[in-house]
Amino acid sequence: MNIQEFSSLLEKVRVSNPLVHNITNVVVTNFTANGLLAIGASPVMAYAHEEAAEMAKIAGALVLNMGTLTEKEVKSMLIAGKSANQHGVPVIFDPVGVGATAYRTDTAKRILEELDITIIRGNAAEIANAAGQKWSIKGVDAVEAAGNTSELAKSAAKELGAVTVITGKQDIVSDGRSTFAINNGHPLLTKVTGAGCLLTSIIGAFAAIEKDPVKAAVTSLVVYGSAAEIAAEKSDGKGPGTFQIEFLNSLYNISAADVESYGSFEKHQLGGNINESEQSFNHSGF
Amino acid sequence: MNIQEFSSLLEKVRVSNPLVHNITNVVVTNFTANGLLAIGASPVMAYAHEEAAEMAKIAGALVLNMGTLTEKEVKSMLIAGKSANQHGVPVIFDPVGVGATAYRTDTAKRILEELDITIIRGNAAEIANAAGQKWSIKGVDAVEAAGNTSELAKSAAKELGAVTVITGKQDIVSDGRSTFAINNGHPLLTKVTGAGCLLTSIIGAFAAIEKDPVKAAVTSLVVYGSAAEIAAEKSDGKGPGTFQIEFLNSLYNISAADVESYGSFEKHQLGGNINESEQSFNHSGF
Amino acid sequence: MNIQEFSSLLEKVRVSNPLVHNITNVVVTNFTANGLLAIGASPVMAYAHEEAAEMAKIAGALVLNMGTLTEKEVKSMLIAGKSANQHGVPVIFDPVGVGATAYRTDTAKRILEELDITIIRGNAAEIANAAGQKWSIKGVDAVEAAGNTSELAKSAAKELGAVTVITGKQDIVSDGRSTFAINNGHPLLTKVTGAGCLLTSIIGAFAAIEKDPVKAAVTSLVVYGSAAEIAAEKSDGKGPGTFQIEFLNSLYNISAADVESYGSFEKHQLGGNINESEQSFNHSGF
Repeated sequence: MNIQEFSSLLEKVRVSNPLVHNITNVVVTNFTANGLLAIGASPVMAYAHEEAAEMAKIAGALVLNMGTLTEKEVKSMLIAGKSANQHGVPVIFDPVGVGATAYRTDTAKRILEELDITIIRGNAAEIANAAGQKWSIKGVDAVEAAGNTSELAKSAAKELGAVTVITGKQDIVSDGRSTFAINNGHPLLTKVTGAGCLLTSIIGAFAAIEKDPVKAAVTSLVVYGSAAEIAAEKSDGKGPGTFQIEFLNSLYNISAADVESYGSFEKHQLGGNINESEQSFNHSGF
Repeated sequence: MNIQEFSSLLEKVRVSNPLVHNITNVVVTNFTANGLLAIGASPVMAYAHEEAAEMAKIAGALVLNMGTLTEKEVKSMLIAGKSANQHGVPVIFDPVGVGATAYRTDTAKRILEELDITIIRGNAAEIANAAGQKWSIKGVDAVEAAGNTSELAKSAAKELGAVTVITGKQDIVSDGRSTFAINNGHPLLTKVTGAGCLLTSIIGAFAAIEKDPVKAAVTSLVVYGSAAEIAAEKSDGKGPGTFQIEFLNSLYNISAADVESYGSFEKHQLGGNINESEQSFNHSGF
Repeated sequence: MNIQEFSSLLEKVRVSNPLVHNITNVVVTNFTANGLLAIGASPVMAYAHEEAAEMAKIAGALVLNMGTLTEKEVKSMLIAGKSANQHGVPVIFDPVGVGATAYRTDTAKRILEELDITIIRGNAAEIANAAGQKWSIKGVDAVEAAGNTSELAKSAAKELGAVTVITGKQDIVSDGRSTFAINNGHPLLTKVTGAGCLLTSIIGAFAAIEKDPVKAAVTSLVVYGSAAEIAAEKSDGKGPGTFQIEFLNSLYNISAADVESYGSFEKHQLGGNINESEQSFNHSGF
């Protein structure tokens, strides 16, 4: 995996314009759709039980996000997820706030048991709770990760049988065997609601056009985080309102050269240490 | 119909501040409300079966958008629509994604059969599918129109008994007898989610204050497309985030002089050719 | 109560990052979450009957907003509200559009009867209707207040047993004994959908960290209105799109010095006259 592959996958998203079917929460639908349009994907939100299976079947990826779940939406997720599984459509799962209430924990468990999840994305507490480990969580916002997120990603990936993405100060991707750390991103992302949810949907866009889910996830994190760094530069300290707008601009404008200049990732050795022999790009100040 | 009438209708919207009742999808509610406020209308979203009829009755227009339909919302649409029909309130229908799933096709058919729709607005594939013709559609985004949209608008208007608006590179309005083409707009509108949905709601704002639905629709398209052109100039190539914000600014600021300077429309002759004797304004570069 | 207390409460919100549980309408969820993040709070939206009680229990405040109410959401509000009451969590109520339909009036009455509301926030017509007085209302937007809002706030507070906040050209806070008028704000707030709803949620953020609901409400209005004035200056006449973004920036950036320089409030004497002996800050041009 190298940085040139990432920019070529970005180009592929823009050319092939994959349909990403989102069953997501009411807080972030607009931002998610605009972010997917900006990166070059084609978003669709379809929740009705009557059409969820049919829409998932024709989609390039299905994204399930339980941010404002109700029993009706959980049923939609299961219908759509089963259809996606049946037709080889990758399913990306964002277990928002799992651990915050018993209902969220139960629902995440149910989704993970009944569906074949390709990639799961959350903060450290969410991933730990989804994998049956107890980490502290308050509402739907991340708490400072206290443990080793690289080890957590690896063990969660094995436990859940899904490529695991943990986002935080450093982002981690693991399939239980290979583990990557991505250094891109910006703190202002935590001040824009749905920045995590949109990322999950953008992972869906890349998973729609790249069969290797680890590569799709790492690419998404590098592109997304680089776009955030560019947006922070452009927004010039004005605040999260301006940053949000510049971030949509950046997702739309980010070039292969930008990805190569900003992108920063590294492969972890077994045991979680950084493998120095891997190519590491770390040009960003963050 | 001439361009001065359009700017006078715009002034009328701003002065009379019509109440537009929207039953719309969860992706675009915020953008729709902000766009309606910007143009000078007063948006309300009311979905409960208990109040849909009462709200539709006091509204200046009712807008039905099936972007993220569920059976519950379809029922709300039918309740509100029947009340609107009974009280002479114009009903504007946006059959989002009709043709993409059987459920959408069936629902659009049901709404068109049970309600008296004043104006229907969609891209070419949606209008064709709503009118029982088969056009290709992927998700909820438009595909390039392959046929003659002017002929399609005319035949759909006759078939559906509603003024038909087809949006695309060129926008078409037809009541089956007269057909108009509007040349305003900007490609960045396709990169902002809900740009079509907001347009449908703004057609509602104009239909609330202008009894002739053809004139209301043509005016909406000219004003909306001109505002988009101004917004594209102001956003100066920065991207869809900035464009979205400048577009709200433009809807708020667009003046009679702007409408007269940017507005571009023409009447089609029977058979779909352009009637050169009609006044044609084509000052925009788009 | 003095202006230094307000800036110290603002600092306290930013440091303690209170969890604000919102059951709110689909139009404003995104803007509400972004505004709460900007001021320093931690927003959560949780509607499922299965988790509403549990989430409300751990929250610093519960905000109930009936902008797009359905029977299911009303039930969520009652479940969450009872849990909040039981665990001493302040409940802030925004009776959006009460008086516009019988269903809204009935629902507001039901919520006010079944729950112990700490603070209620609305425009003059909404508060009058909630308190059983008849004021004209059109949809969900405020009509010009025709009566004495200070007297209305006082009588509504007594009638409803809740601190009452009326927003309009001048904002009023009353607990039935003491009444305060706040002079901050900007007309562009009426051109951004959810500006009232977000304010209600921000009152929740302050009520989470300040036990005196009058002080929490007055602080919120001063901070919110001052941020709006700063945003209007920064947006430089460009329109409501830019204002909305600058407002999020301002909520994030507003300093103690800004609050002290822009903040303007006064205590009303019994009978509604202004008590000149109270400290009055009125530096804003608005």
